[in-house]
Amino acid sequence: MSYLKLTAQELEQEYKKLKNVYDEEKSKGLNLNMARGKPGSEQLDLSNGILDTITSNCHYIGSDGMDFRNYGVLQGINECRKLFGEILEVDYHNVMVGGNSSLNMMFDTISCMMTKPIVEGCKPWYEVKDRKFLCPVPGYDRHFGITEYYGFEMLPIPMNEDGPDMDMVEELVANDSSIKGIWCVPKYSNPSGVTYSDETVRRLAALKPAAKDFRIMWDNAYCIHDITDTPDKLLNIVDECKKYNNEDLPILFCSTSKITFPGAGVAAMAASDNNMKVFLERYNYEVISYDKMNMLRHVKFFCNYQGVLDHMKKHKAVLKPKFDVVLNTLEKELVPVEIGKWTKPNGGYFVSIDVLDGTAKRVVQLCKEAGVVLTGAGATYPYGKDPRDTNIRIAPTFPSIDELQKAMDIFCICVKLAACEKLLEK
Amino acid sequence: MSYLKLTAQELEQEYKKLKNVYDEEKSKGLNLNMARGKPGSEQLDLSNGILDTITSNCHYIGSDGMDFRNYGVLQGINECRKLFGEILEVDYHNVMVGGNSSLNMMFDTISCMMTKPIVEGCKPWYEVKDRKFLCPVPGYDRHFGITEYYGFEMLPIPMNEDGPDMDMVEELVANDSSIKGIWCVPKYSNPSGVTYSDETVRRLAALKPAAKDFRIMWDNAYCIHDITDTPDKLLNIVDECKKYNNEDLPILFCSTSKITFPGAGVAAMAASDNNMKVFLERYNYEVISYDKMNMLRHVKFFCNYQGVLDHMKKHKAVLKPKFDVVLNTLEKELVPVEIGKWTKPNGGYFVSIDVLDGTAKRVVQLCKEAGVVLTGAGATYPYGKDPRDTNIRIAPTFPSIDELQKAMDIFCICVKLAACEKLLEK
Repeated sequence: MSYLKLTAQELEQEYKKLKNVYDEEKSKGLNLNMARGKPGSEQLDLSNGILDTITSNCHYIGSDGMDFRNYGVLQGINECRKLFGEILEVDYHNVMVGGNSSLNMMFDTISCMMTKPIVEGCKPWYEVKDRKFLCPVPGYDRHFGITEYYGFEMLPIPMNEDGPDMDMVEELVANDSSIKGIWCVPKYSNPSGVTYSDETVRRLAALKPAAKDFRIMWDNAYCIHDITDTPDKLLNIVDECKKYNNEDLPILFCSTSKITFPGAGVAAMAASDNNMKVFLERYNYEVISYDKMNMLRHVKFFCNYQGVLDHMKKHKAVLKPKFDVVLNTLEKELVPVEIGKWTKPNGGYFVSIDVLDGTAKRVVQLCKEAGVVLTGAGATYPYGKDPRDTNIRIAPTFPSIDELQKAMDIFCICVKLAACEKLLEK
Repeated sequence: MSYLKLTAQELEQEYKKLKNVYDEEKSKGLNLNMARGKPGSEQLDLSNGILDTITSNCHYIGSDGMDFRNYGVLQGINECRKLFGEILEVDYHNVMVGGNSSLNMMFDTISCMMTKPIVEGCKPWYEVKDRKFLCPVPGYDRHFGITEYYGFEMLPIPMNEDGPDMDMVEELVANDSSIKGIWCVPKYSNPSGVTYSDETVRRLAALKPAAKDFRIMWDNAYCIHDITDTPDKLLNIVDECKKYNNEDLPILFCSTSKITFPGAGVAAMAASDNNMKVFLERYNYEVISYDKMNMLRHVKFFCNYQGVLDHMKKHKAVLKPKFDVVLNTLEKELVPVEIGKWTKPNGGYFVSIDVLDGTAKRVVQLCKEAGVVLTGAGATYPYGKDPRDTNIRIAPTFPSIDELQKAMDIFCICVKLAACEKLLEK
């Protein structure tokens, strides 16, 4: 029953059958969305209690006497820095808590290095005309967007099952001082769900870049976002870097966007003393202080790190059945026809699927016409260009279970339909 | 009794008298702060009700069906954009609501123009090696900090009673295309409290800068922050600019930092369609959305623009007596000796005083030694350099009335003491 073994006649028959089913679905005028990694409303409801943690009857005074309603404390309130220190597994003295968006902190960090050198004596990146950035693919479109906005040439690095191809990374950074960094989502990677192996983390920590100002953008967005009972473990890159005298290499990011509210969470970053000195000089001109009341809200809601972990179990209970729908439907529909290859992540927000080469764009188009919105094909590659036109990112978190099942049924029809078209060279 | 008319002997006598009083005050080990424009806790309490506007029992859905807890709406929720549209007196379609800091939006705006041209065909400012910015003085140290960070040469423009010296501004911008902008706090200016006259606003709106990418940074921080019953009126610069085909000239900023909470308010900016297009392209890479729940909190707390104005009356009631303490003490202590010249603002957060030339630093030092912290002398000038060493910014809002009276008494002693020292050439 593998499509690859069917005769042209058999394929034509299959195509007609699928086309009929597809047309019927299309006629229903559905409106389903699996495009973005947005929590569903059931997940958001889990955190509504945070809205009751601060009321007009509260005290808003920190342990150091600071009135959190007023100006002050550039790096964020200590209570919240400590919480993020535990989440990121670093000393809280190296943590800065920001606004509601870690993407914003990443943009700001690159922005900083564009016009001020992160290492004395190096050129600001704006002045490095052939500046380049390593982009493990498939990866997160909004990462690639930042380096595209700032005019970096983006070099795609294949993602293997243990992280980016480290042979390639090592060779590139050792020989080209215009390569200034690498984007990493080290745990439950967006979109593949892969967690970097210990070996990968060690090799990253031991890098000997030709550029003294090479930096690892370590976006640990899904650090505690498990969905199965066999969660992945990620090695602590800060500890590893210390072993290789490479403390200044990584810059860590995370947020509560997918813990409390994407629209009203808290973001944080962590970096070595040397790095932080440069960033804080900028922050000192950039802002007086970020929203301390929202930091306090988070601290009160969770009480402590264990409270955060307990909360994540509730997310897991909501998300597991959704990922099951995706994986079971793919298994049932695509394994028999031997089309497609996908990941089975232990956490994160996505399932990444490689459909038949040359059909990803067509699948997304067919889905769209049938009322199912997917992340654009190619979005997981720099400049939106997937050379094999094969990768599609599925985001199962936002729709309800029923909607998701419907959307996945249509998705699988489209994957098969596009495969038939391709094989028949229609 | 004017110090300037006293004989050396009389002055010496006065000096000794003052020194005794000063030493006595100093021995008390006071700890008073008139340094920053921070609201006092009584003012903060006025807004505590905002913390009850959203609880776990609320609906968080906007008029357009958007769940404010989730990702989305780059420019901010319409309900809040409309409110800021009224505050800034502009069409809300040109308003973007950001995080909690207008300073952050200003930094970001300059940052944007550093690496991307605001007008097609112009160079990003990073590439303009002799870039310059006009800085009305005395002015806001954090404005000057941004342009200093980005390597602008800052040209001081004297502030008159109707705003910056427009003859000078017109001549400079007409002839030097490396002058890229001007910092303005047009109403209740920081620190002088001056509001730009209609004539000044019109002349700014009619500017014909040599630089096509010259921009007016219009920080309307105190737009509705009256403290007397004879508030100033500011002409609408956006309307005026339209008359001169100069719509792209101004970029407007404001925030609720001094309306609700400095630490947890909402900031906004407004600009022409052309400008906004460039800024939004950047914002689109920079962030998914700012804190919509906090925007909603503000909308619910105020209901509408009238609600904001009513709220400002409560601030006025708190602030009026504090400004009275400052002005009455200055009047009582310094008018008889004919030392010092100060403003009597109808709003804003500061009183600006010019002490005897060459004594501002000494006054700040004497105050500090007696336990009264002032904004550093020179802070109101670019690079912290006040050429006449004369200007001091007094921020009366944070201390209690009693503390303020004590601090002002000491301040006046120090002003007189420093004047005696100077005149005696000690």
